[in-house]
Amino acid sequence: MKLATYTADGRTRTGIVVEDRIIDTGLEGTMIDLIRDWDALKDGLAAKAVAGGGIPLAEVTLEAPVQRPGKIFAIGLNYADHIAESNMKTPERQVWFTKAQTSVNAPFADVEIAKGTMTADYEVELVAVIGKGGKHVSADDAAGAIFGYCVGNDVTERMWQHASPQWSLGKSFDTHAPMGPWIVTADEVGDPHTLGLRCFVNGEKRQDSNTSHLVFNIWQQVEHLSVGMTLEPGDCLFTGTPGGVGAAMDPRQFLKAGDVVRCEVDGLGHIEATMVAEG
Amino acid sequence: MKLATYTADGRTRTGIVVEDRIIDTGLEGTMIDLIRDWDALKDGLAAKAVAGGGIPLAEVTLEAPVQRPGKIFAIGLNYADHIAESNMKTPERQVWFTKAQTSVNAPFADVEIAKGTMTADYEVELVAVIGKGGKHVSADDAAGAIFGYCVGNDVTERMWQHASPQWSLGKSFDTHAPMGPWIVTADEVGDPHTLGLRCFVNGEKRQDSNTSHLVFNIWQQVEHLSVGMTLEPGDCLFTGTPGGVGAAMDPRQFLKAGDVVRCEVDGLGHIEATMVAEG
Repeated sequence: MKLATYTADGRTRTGIVVEDRIIDTGLEGTMIDLIRDWDALKDGLAAKAVAGGGIPLAEVTLEAPVQRPGKIFAIGLNYADHIAESNMKTPERQVWFTKAQTSVNAPFADVEIAKGTMTADYEVELVAVIGKGGKHVSADDAAGAIFGYCVGNDVTERMWQHASPQWSLGKSFDTHAPMGPWIVTADEVGDPHTLGLRCFVNGEKRQDSNTSHLVFNIWQQVEHLSVGMTLEPGDCLFTGTPGGVGAAMDPRQFLKAGDVVRCEVDGLGHIEATMVAEG
Repeated sequence: MKLATYTADGRTRTGIVVEDRIIDTGLEGTMIDLIRDWDALKDGLAAKAVAGGGIPLAEVTLEAPVQRPGKIFAIGLNYADHIAESNMKTPERQVWFTKAQTSVNAPFADVEIAKGTMTADYEVELVAVIGKGGKHVSADDAAGAIFGYCVGNDVTERMWQHASPQWSLGKSFDTHAPMGPWIVTADEVGDPHTLGLRCFVNGEKRQDSNTSHLVFNIWQQVEHLSVGMTLEPGDCLFTGTPGGVGAAMDPRQFLKAGDVVRCEVDGLGHIEATMVAEG
């Protein structure tokens, strides 16, 4: 099933995407509520999807599927080619930073280049959305902790990232976590470690890889994070970006106002942002 | 005014603390809602505080004042003595990491030493709770962005902190962000840069400093963070810890089950946790 958060007629709600239409779930509450109650809701929602109806997707505004995740954790240095272009060594242990809740952005909304900055960069990623979550989840059990997947762009303010030994602030600028266009539930994705992912800037392909190249796979990620933290419904894990970021190009290429950044992952659709200068 | 979140008769709500009593605000919603609506609410709440009544504090359970902050940012290396004991240099630029929303703990609740870990450590800190917040808040205007202050313990899993170049995960273990016992509003605190703060383990004083020794003061912190991020009501800033952490003792002393950790800040009260092994 494909589950979206969308706005129509001034009201934001959750919906089921079937081909080019979206069907209101009829539920009060946010995507996090839906995920929390999924076991009780899924049969009814599946029946709604089969019954059809709804309105054209083109008539609604898609929002980030989870607009206010409790946690957004993102793993760094998790594709060999990105590690090489960053002049880093493959870490022996997973390296995690965070993105602020306030950095979440709708899948087709503009991304703002903050005033006084000039080193915004893209990073296409597969995003895992936590379902049951939990603590001390083993890699063997990790698939059962995940609700589904979507496309993410870990937009990064490179100067702010590297001017500090701690990356989280440079990863947390407003609008710098576009996600979407919807969540594809885990059963429909199947193995998340076989998905091609690509990023284009103004139509030029900059990143092109496959989740099969992850250094630490998603099951290992869930195991590692849940040693100390309880993972909760709607928490989002950015699972790593492959090579090809602008900061590693020669000469370096950062995003400028007017640039259009498209990120796509096989089976999940795409998100696309126009870069704008902060007003 | 002193504002708390508390549980009594199975219901969690907000209250006004007057001496040794707590008065129900009568408001629906969380502390974040109260902070957001503060301008409209403050006169009525002040009148309630004067009218008195309520029930003894001893009969309620105090919760973290903000149970689910949208963001928790914490500054590292922000007291000269802690920088020296950490064998680091004074950073030229502020160094920020994060603590997960799920690490928040009540002011007198047990703190869990996670299974398989043995390097839990304390860090007493003054916590600034954001009020109006905003983006691009200058240091000159920063005082107006803050709602109030409370005591925090930035409990840290040192092995997890230092086994990764990124600290946020080792700072985000469940129960590792006790805060409280209540928020003292900014008007009542006055200058937050003149407050003594101390940490005791089993009655032994381990940390003893004053916020006058902050490397980057709180106004500079708000200015720096809000260049890229919108600060929102209820966001929490851990403003740095002074020297005396267990990891810097010779020999190193980590917290073990049964230890009692008390953190206090002048004018704000204290919080106290018993360390327990995760079940």
